[in-house]
Amino acid sequence: MSLYPSLEDYKVDSMARAQAQQAHQQQAVTAAASTGQVALYPSLSQYMGLDVSQWAAAHGSLEVRHAGSGHAQIAPVTQQSVGLRRAEIRQGLRPVTLCKGADGKLGVRVKAISQGLFVAMVYRGSPAALAGLRFGDQIVEVNGEAVAGWSADRAAKAFKGCPVNGIQLMVRDRPFERTVTVHKDSVGHVGFVIKDAAITALVADSSAARNGLLTDHHIVEVNGQNVVGMKDDQIAELMKKSKRTVTVTVMPTFVYKHIVSCMGKSLVRKWMDHSIVDEDF
Amino acid sequence: MSLYPSLEDYKVDSMARAQAQQAHQQQAVTAAASTGQVALYPSLSQYMGLDVSQWAAAHGSLEVRHAGSGHAQIAPVTQQSVGLRRAEIRQGLRPVTLCKGADGKLGVRVKAISQGLFVAMVYRGSPAALAGLRFGDQIVEVNGEAVAGWSADRAAKAFKGCPVNGIQLMVRDRPFERTVTVHKDSVGHVGFVIKDAAITALVADSSAARNGLLTDHHIVEVNGQNVVGMKDDQIAELMKKSKRTVTVTVMPTFVYKHIVSCMGKSLVRKWMDHSIVDEDF
Repeated sequence: MSLYPSLEDYKVDSMARAQAQQAHQQQAVTAAASTGQVALYPSLSQYMGLDVSQWAAAHGSLEVRHAGSGHAQIAPVTQQSVGLRRAEIRQGLRPVTLCKGADGKLGVRVKAISQGLFVAMVYRGSPAALAGLRFGDQIVEVNGEAVAGWSADRAAKAFKGCPVNGIQLMVRDRPFERTVTVHKDSVGHVGFVIKDAAITALVADSSAARNGLLTDHHIVEVNGQNVVGMKDDQIAELMKKSKRTVTVTVMPTFVYKHIVSCMGKSLVRKWMDHSIVDEDF
Repeated sequence: MSLYPSLEDYKVDSMARAQAQQAHQQQAVTAAASTGQVALYPSLSQYMGLDVSQWAAAHGSLEVRHAGSGHAQIAPVTQQSVGLRRAEIRQGLRPVTLCKGADGKLGVRVKAISQGLFVAMVYRGSPAALAGLRFGDQIVEVNGEAVAGWSADRAAKAFKGCPVNGIQLMVRDRPFERTVTVHKDSVGHVGFVIKDAAITALVADSSAARNGLLTDHHIVEVNGQNVVGMKDDQIAELMKKSKRTVTVTVMPTFVYKHIVSCMGKSLVRKWMDHSIVDEDF
C-alpha cells in the first residue's frame, strides 16, 4: 500500500493518473480508427471501471519509480522537499558515538518519562549536537548499560563517570513525535495558529486542517530544524522561508510540557541547539 | 544513518562485522606471508582504528543488501519477521475505498480528539475491517470533505448519508502508536507485565527494558494483529505463539483511554476486529 506524504500529493497524483488514462484511451481509439478496426466489446478499462490491462501494470511500475529513497511513497509535489527528508522519524534504534568536549561535558540533559530517558536539551555546538542527538530522542543504553528505570540524576552521574572518548549510546528515534507535511496557499498561509509553540487552532479549509494536524500539540521542529525555545515570530519566520511545503514535527503537549519542565525558559532559549542536520557538511 | 529494529539486531550485526573484519585481516596477513612481503607500515585499518579501505566500501554495500524492503534497516535477527512488517507504521496518508455492508453500515466507530477523528472500533467482518481500517487510524477526509473539527456524531451522520458504493476516505496511519520489537530469552519471556493491556512494569535486564519499552502505555497490536478488547491471557497466548521475536504496537495510556471511553467493554470484546492483515489472502 502506498502512503502519500500529504493530501495535496494524493490529489495531484490522482489527477495525473486520470489524465494519463484519458490520453491512453484516446490514443487507443485513434489507433483503432486508423486501422479500420471496430471494437465490438468495450475495452476492459471501460467495463465496470476495472482496468487490469498491460498498461495498468506498466503504470504500476511507474509508481515505484516515483518513490522517494527507501519508502514506496508517491510524492509528485513534495518529492524534492529537503525538509520532509530531514524531518523523517523512523522506528528503530541507532548507535551514537560521543566524546566529551573541552569542558568535560557532553552537552545533553535528559528527563525520565515512564521508565525511559529522553533528551530534553542539546547545547549549541556541544558534542551531543555534533553527533546528531535531537530533542525528544530516547536513550536506551549508555556504554552498554541499559538505562530503563534510571532517574535523570543517575543518568547525569553516569555521563560524568564516562571516559573522555568513545562513549557509546543507543538511541531510539524521537518516539513521541511525528511529522505532518502542509502546503502553502496563494497568500503563503498553511492554516494553524500557534501560541508559545503550541497549536491552538486550525483554520477551516486550510492545508493544516486537510492534512489532519491536531491541536493540543507543540511544534518541536520545522523542516527538520529544532525550534524548541524559539519565540513564535521566529518560528513563523522559519516557515515563511520555505517555498511551498512545510514539514512540521509535533509532540503531544502533555509530553512536551513534562520534558521541558526541568529547565528554565531562558536556558532553553539561549542554549538550545537550532542547527540544521545536514547543512554544515 | 541506519536504524536497527531492536537492540539485539545491533549487537548481532556489530559482532558479525567484527568477525568479518578479523577474518579479512588474518587473510591479508596470510597472503603477505605467503608472498614473502613484509609490511613496514601498519595497514590503514590498524592505524588509529580507521578503516577506509576498499573492503570497508564493499562492506558498506553489503549493508544495503541486508536491508529489508524499503527501509535501509540492518536486521540480521528480525529481517525475516513477518510481525515487524505487518506492524509497520508509516508517516503519511493513504486512500481507502469502502462500500456499505448488507445492513447499510460501514462497521466503524470514530472518536474526536483535538480536532481530529480517530477510528475507535472496527467491527469484525465489516466493510471497514475488509478495507484495512485499523484501531487508531486518523480519518482526515470523507468523500472529499475535510473532517477537521467534526464531532463523532457528525461523522456518524456523514457516514449514514454516504452512497452505498465508492465511499472514499483519506486515512493517516495510526498517528499515536509506535512499534517496539523485543526478543524472547531462553525461557520465552520478553520482560514486561501487563494488566488490562496496560504495561505496568518492566523486568530488569530483559529485552523489553533494553529496547526502551515504556510503562504508561497500552498494547494495541501484537505482531500487527489488533488486540484491543482481548483479555490479558489471550494477549499472552498470542505472544507465546511467535517464535523468537515479538513486535508490539503501543499507544500512550491517556490517548487509549480517551478513545475507548466511548464504548462499552463487552461491545469491544465481542465485536472488535482481530483479524491479521495479510493472512486471509
